[in-house]
Amino acid sequence: MLSKNNIQYLKSLQLKKFREKSGEFVVEGPKLVVELLKSDFAVKSVYATIDWIKQNIDVANNLIDITEVSQSELERISGFKTPNLVLALAKTKVHIMSLDDIQSDFSLVLDGISDPGNLGTIIRTADWYGIRNIIVSEDTVEYLNPKVVQASMGSIFRVAIYYTNVAGLIKSLKPDFPVYGTFMDGKNIYNENFTEAGMLILGSESHGIRENIEKLVKARLHIPSLYSKAESLNVSIAGAICCSEIKRSVLKNS
Amino acid sequence: MLSKNNIQYLKSLQLKKFREKSGEFVVEGPKLVVELLKSDFAVKSVYATIDWIKQNIDVANNLIDITEVSQSELERISGFKTPNLVLALAKTKVHIMSLDDIQSDFSLVLDGISDPGNLGTIIRTADWYGIRNIIVSEDTVEYLNPKVVQASMGSIFRVAIYYTNVAGLIKSLKPDFPVYGTFMDGKNIYNENFTEAGMLILGSESHGIRENIEKLVKARLHIPSLYSKAESLNVSIAGAICCSEIKRSVLKNS
Repeated sequence: MLSKNNIQYLKSLQLKKFREKSGEFVVEGPKLVVELLKSDFAVKSVYATIDWIKQNIDVANNLIDITEVSQSELERISGFKTPNLVLALAKTKVHIMSLDDIQSDFSLVLDGISDPGNLGTIIRTADWYGIRNIIVSEDTVEYLNPKVVQASMGSIFRVAIYYTNVAGLIKSLKPDFPVYGTFMDGKNIYNENFTEAGMLILGSESHGIRENIEKLVKARLHIPSLYSKAESLNVSIAGAICCSEIKRSVLKNS
Repeated sequence: MLSKNNIQYLKSLQLKKFREKSGEFVVEGPKLVVELLKSDFAVKSVYATIDWIKQNIDVANNLIDITEVSQSELERISGFKTPNLVLALAKTKVHIMSLDDIQSDFSLVLDGISDPGNLGTIIRTADWYGIRNIIVSEDTVEYLNPKVVQASMGSIFRVAIYYTNVAGLIKSLKPDFPVYGTFMDGKNIYNENFTEAGMLILGSESHGIRENIEKLVKARLHIPSLYSKAESLNVSIAGAICCSEIKRSVLKNS
């Protein structure tokens, strides 16, 4: 039986200010909770219906803090219209960036992405392509926003997201480090030979890459539109095509 | 000044049953309304605030039926939380498929995609890559659903969407017509040489391509996951990578 305070607290974590204040966030649904439990995020409590507990008896037995809840209690703590068997409370995590790490791998950089579904989808796609680091501008939507968590399908537990001053970061990299950006007027991305280490910057759909970052880009790329009157791609789609091209190119050259 | 009946009618078109009954649908926001007006869809009326009319005076002067509405009237007819200057009422359109057309071009085929955001994003990406025809199973979400229209960013006005019995359609194609499908166990899509005409089938994220269609697929493809524990890609992302690979391959071979 959940206390009124407990319900109120869990529900409050749908909002950024309460996640920031408490350093905790919620994860919902069987798939994501299992991914959370496999990750190195600290799990504080799990709230599950008897159906979930029965189906995951081994997992449940190993949990330090698990509370059985009724369907109606789950509805009261959930951010979903249709809650899905289980909700976990976990500690938020701030990833600490290492310049060496960044300079020895290929990273994505996101400048001012505000839509949580897009951020979550980009994290999921990056994870699929083995991109381990995503650097984002400080005004990018928070990666523990429930919609980001959901769209990432658990990939937020595997990919490190660094919130930073992007221009400052680029300036601190070694001078020959490859910094790519996507623009309407860049070179055809399909002809690019990517190196194993580098970074590719994506801007928001409405504003593109901001000027202070644009001037630090060393190679301007473009995803060519073919025979079409379409003006743009969704940013998570552009990101996916970039990830695909980076990895295809690295595979081809390795 | 809008009548109560008028408001009620426009608002009712947020729901599929009223769109089907009336054969009309709504399009919202300056970008999409302009795309609609440029398209061959029949526009019945435009409801716009004075701001939109002033900014688009040439367009507005050419419209047969335009009604100036106040911000609060716009809020009453809009499906958005924050309505955006203009709303248009247009006639729905059923695309008529020609087998010759399908057999002389590369099409996407969607089996059971239910999420409107995903369908809209796939249509937008297909449009970018010059794919003119998308064939969808009869249980696919309706392409005039407001969320599809929105996510497509106007591409629904340029790409033809055909609702049909997919298995029946494939059986009616010439026997050597290339039919690709994406599966977990297919061949690496990056090594495929696509031909200029063909079709590629994508299934839903939860169920994949259904069995009756799967057995008609002639080439099983797979988007390789690299060094990752991610289990899957969002279907609109998988679709984008397929479009990108099809067009890259056709360009390379042409």
